[in-house]
Amino acid sequence: MGEKMNKTKQEGLSRRQMLGATAAGGGLAMLGGAGGLAGSMGSAKAATVGGRKVELAPGELDPYYGFWSSGQTGEMRILGFPSMRELMRVPVFNRCSATGWGQTNESLKILTEGLLPETKEFLAKQGKKTYDNGDLHHPHMSFTDGTYDGRYLFMNDKANTRVARVRCDVMKCDKIIEIPNAHDIHGLRPQKYPRTGYVFANGEHEAPLVNDGKILDDPSQYVNIFTAIDGDTMEIAWQVMVSGNLDNCDCDYQGKYAFSTSYNSEMGMTLADMTSAEMDHVVVFNIAEIERAVKEGDYQELNGVPVIDGRKGSNKKYTRYVPIPNSPHGINTVPDQKHVVVNGKLSPTCSVLDVTKFDALFESDVDPRSVVVAEPELGLGPLHTAFDGKGFAYTTLFLDSQMVKWDIDKAIRKFAGEDVDPIVSKVDVHYQPGHNHSTMGETKEADGEWLISLNKFSKDRFINVGPLKPENEQVIDISSDDMKVVHDGPTFAEPHDCILVRRDVVNPDNAWRRDDPVFADAVAQARADGVDLENDSVVIRDGNKVRVYMTSMAPAFGLETFTVKQGDEVTVYVTNIDDIDDLTHGFTLGNYGISMELAPQATASVTFTADRPGVHWFYCQWFCHALHMEMRGRMFVEPEGA
Amino acid sequence: MGEKMNKTKQEGLSRRQMLGATAAGGGLAMLGGAGGLAGSMGSAKAATVGGRKVELAPGELDPYYGFWSSGQTGEMRILGFPSMRELMRVPVFNRCSATGWGQTNESLKILTEGLLPETKEFLAKQGKKTYDNGDLHHPHMSFTDGTYDGRYLFMNDKANTRVARVRCDVMKCDKIIEIPNAHDIHGLRPQKYPRTGYVFANGEHEAPLVNDGKILDDPSQYVNIFTAIDGDTMEIAWQVMVSGNLDNCDCDYQGKYAFSTSYNSEMGMTLADMTSAEMDHVVVFNIAEIERAVKEGDYQELNGVPVIDGRKGSNKKYTRYVPIPNSPHGINTVPDQKHVVVNGKLSPTCSVLDVTKFDALFESDVDPRSVVVAEPELGLGPLHTAFDGKGFAYTTLFLDSQMVKWDIDKAIRKFAGEDVDPIVSKVDVHYQPGHNHSTMGETKEADGEWLISLNKFSKDRFINVGPLKPENEQVIDISSDDMKVVHDGPTFAEPHDCILVRRDVVNPDNAWRRDDPVFADAVAQARADGVDLENDSVVIRDGNKVRVYMTSMAPAFGLETFTVKQGDEVTVYVTNIDDIDDLTHGFTLGNYGISMELAPQATASVTFTADRPGVHWFYCQWFCHALHMEMRGRMFVEPEGA
Repeated sequence: MGEKMNKTKQEGLSRRQMLGATAAGGGLAMLGGAGGLAGSMGSAKAATVGGRKVELAPGELDPYYGFWSSGQTGEMRILGFPSMRELMRVPVFNRCSATGWGQTNESLKILTEGLLPETKEFLAKQGKKTYDNGDLHHPHMSFTDGTYDGRYLFMNDKANTRVARVRCDVMKCDKIIEIPNAHDIHGLRPQKYPRTGYVFANGEHEAPLVNDGKILDDPSQYVNIFTAIDGDTMEIAWQVMVSGNLDNCDCDYQGKYAFSTSYNSEMGMTLADMTSAEMDHVVVFNIAEIERAVKEGDYQELNGVPVIDGRKGSNKKYTRYVPIPNSPHGINTVPDQKHVVVNGKLSPTCSVLDVTKFDALFESDVDPRSVVVAEPELGLGPLHTAFDGKGFAYTTLFLDSQMVKWDIDKAIRKFAGEDVDPIVSKVDVHYQPGHNHSTMGETKEADGEWLISLNKFSKDRFINVGPLKPENEQVIDISSDDMKVVHDGPTFAEPHDCILVRRDVVNPDNAWRRDDPVFADAVAQARADGVDLENDSVVIRDGNKVRVYMTSMAPAFGLETFTVKQGDEVTVYVTNIDDIDDLTHGFTLGNYGISMELAPQATASVTFTADRPGVHWFYCQWFCHALHMEMRGRMFVEPEGA
Repeated sequence: MGEKMNKTKQEGLSRRQMLGATAAGGGLAMLGGAGGLAGSMGSAKAATVGGRKVELAPGELDPYYGFWSSGQTGEMRILGFPSMRELMRVPVFNRCSATGWGQTNESLKILTEGLLPETKEFLAKQGKKTYDNGDLHHPHMSFTDGTYDGRYLFMNDKANTRVARVRCDVMKCDKIIEIPNAHDIHGLRPQKYPRTGYVFANGEHEAPLVNDGKILDDPSQYVNIFTAIDGDTMEIAWQVMVSGNLDNCDCDYQGKYAFSTSYNSEMGMTLADMTSAEMDHVVVFNIAEIERAVKEGDYQELNGVPVIDGRKGSNKKYTRYVPIPNSPHGINTVPDQKHVVVNGKLSPTCSVLDVTKFDALFESDVDPRSVVVAEPELGLGPLHTAFDGKGFAYTTLFLDSQMVKWDIDKAIRKFAGEDVDPIVSKVDVHYQPGHNHSTMGETKEADGEWLISLNKFSKDRFINVGPLKPENEQVIDISSDDMKVVHDGPTFAEPHDCILVRRDVVNPDNAWRRDDPVFADAVAQARADGVDLENDSVVIRDGNKVRVYMTSMAPAFGLETFTVKQGDEVTVYVTNIDDIDDLTHGFTLGNYGISMELAPQATASVTFTADRPGVHWFYCQWFCHALHMEMRGRMFVEPEGA
């Protein structure tokens, strides 16, 4: 016990520091003492066991899809829930060796066409067409009328300021855009009503609006940017300049407001300055007023986007700033379609806002705090809150390493002066929870079945895998007042966030449709070459450009050999004409650094320069048949001068 | 049922085709009929449920490590077994956005220094320092005296002909070498006795020995190469030219022989030609004789490696060719330290070899088939065999979608003429199993606890995730005669192979040691700059080269800002001075495409050109503290001409 306590002592803030001003000056690295962690990490209590089983028997299907962020891994993940089995990785911001994402022409188009010209130029100087990293956060599904509609998933990359969309029919990314004018997109949520519609995205880090180096260390000229993206076209609808760092965001069920937490209203540039104020704020965005500003021209245009001034002190009706204690982090709209919970982070409280009071914020000169209808003290480090649709809220306590269940109505009554205790129960989680989520909990169809706690540390919960440990995502049965932790789920690297979606909402296809836009360029090129992709396997030479077309059908490619000259620019188009469920092929070209996925009925293509002479085998890398090893052919590269 | 049968009919070979010659000519894509799959894929039997539980209660630790290939994903995976929870991804042949593998100077050194000069030149023409793809196969642990010793894991990349090593103390890759003269490394196994020692690696695809384009479509001049790598130095010890495509390999428990299956003894170039012969072979390598050849100079040196001629028809004692029916695939040494099982693939048989009879192969002119002591008929498509240490073998039947348990001794007695049935039982798996493995089953300490079946298709076993489906890895309880499938494990993309290692064998560190060779270059550079990595946060300018040194300790980096000029070559060195278990930080530089992992006590570095002027935030991306969001600082890039 003593050793464990000692080893973890530097992770937390002490209660005093949590509740008050942060120690400034040189001692930053020593922030925090042992106190804040005593309740959880030093606990020797046996793990809570019991509740409903999460294990499924072989062949049983999960009742929920989990759509998962992967944190800095850059991919999106699909899990079965509650079994917590990873069903699929969907490459988005990462370079994926298995699928060829970041290498095929089809993926490079998606990865490059939404980049800003200055970024393309910057990457070109580094010899790159696109980024090959990203930290995918906050996957959220499109909504219709307050609940998930199974069309799209949206997600953000903080590292390189991008937003991506995944199509739910094929479970592949089809659009990635870089957000201009903003820096380091963090919180992201789709509009809930009437439909998505807008995807709201927080630019977290402040910088000069035109960040070309003319302004450097002059924070007074830095701005933060809130962005609304049109989820159908994936174009930027508008942006709003705000005060304070934008952290997380959400929106109402009425289609009128979006809102973001701000954790550094001070606009401080150092840790001490960022945490000096006792109060920060939530920014409320008035969508109709902002749309009117766009229509009426009350904006500056920058990089083709209307940028509206909604900073503190602006006299317009675009934004309002609601004071909230000490660096609020998560913000979550309650399925009752009326309340919003703001999580205090450095304050032990959550603040409950009533969205029906927001009109008054804009229409009259009411006290901005008048929209706060509860502020229960829950424990140390409240970060995110989930809901069961039955009036209860579940908040992660980062420093206490606990989940707290509380009664929203009682919290409101207590705030109004009644002597009631809103806290229902607490359960230890292991360790340091960040996001949490309940089944369908961010929709009006929250069903109160399950809760997940996405914990940032696992420490001793799994067999040791070296200095880098997995995170730990725990499944919690919330079907009774006493929450029960029923499953520990290790994960790489920092999945950060997820949503849990009822199975019937999602209905993917089993094969690609031949008219899919993803490979429309290949179809068009084939047509121009007089090639029928589903039947022809031929080589077309066009100067030093060579287009190699071939089919794949287990266990053979349409071509056994093809010949090119060293230095030729070669494009290989492969069309998988198998249409059987799960009969994916691959195309790998040995010692050329090339491999790509060919799901049933898909066409994929890759372009390379044949710089390496000799005999090079291409082969199928997705085990497809008893004769899979024999599914291969030769590329002959005639040497220069031959 | 009818529809399911119809949809899967093209996947298999019919029994007739399996047992005899393959249909030649134009109809390759139509190979196979519905017959071979009727027994399993069309089965409507309820999934087998029962046996011992594989689910662990929260906080319970797995008794085994699973070290997993990831197939074309290029990473190695560490799983807890039997819970089948993924504990860690270890980047090896892939570009990993989370850890910075393929971007940090430390990883680039490992990824580039073992490449051949011609490959470096080829990649440089493509603007790359190294490959960013690979299909990691066949992870195996180093042995001492016939069992795992917890030192290293070895694995291969077929796509780009490489072999890698992972250190088990930190669970990170420390060496990657390209194998010269060979093409497309497939099967790989470490020497079991007296220790590893050699790592044996099969070059699968035949090509001209000097593959510079002078020889193209002349298969008579193609060769296949078997390679022995020194596992301690990761240098090539020797290579042997052989006849036929090398598939999988293994070795004996006596340290005398290695052996590889060959699936295309015909050296055919087309599917029809590759499968025309009824018999293929296993190549047996006589290690002492090959070492003598190296010593005595009976080789040609190519790319600095002694290449010995062990092709069929060579009169030397380096190799022997044991005829085996129809394209054998897996080869697995039995824990009895005497027998080897060769899996028939296109033959319904496994062939059992007796290694004590191998001496005679080399010393006298015995019939090569004299080493075959059993050849039981097991079912359709036997691919790999695992063992329980109790005399039983477990073979995957790819086409039957079954696992068959059989009695090795009875198979030997039957082959000798006795009327016994070696088959104990069969169980359906879902679907099309490739590799299998049992706990400690490839060592002399096989414990007969658990078996895993790595199935290539999952089809309807999980909720639908689109055209690309997961594989399905099933856990089987083998503690009784009737095998019980107790867990379905979906996985991406084609993990292919694994080993299951008793927990006590592996003892990783919780933090890096400051004298670790992985970041020794950074330590040396810091020393030359007069910088103490663990205490100093400073910027050193050296012409247009800028070295930025900083510490990280939750929740702050050692530097709040640093300034460079546009066009500077900047190297950022970050040292994580936190030493608490699991307190990993990260360093991400916004809109610069840079992110890297900083595990406790590690130093990592990245070099880039500051091509983008302006204010750029760097931040910690591994959630480390309540003030994690505030753990950030600014890089100022002064524009050119400023």
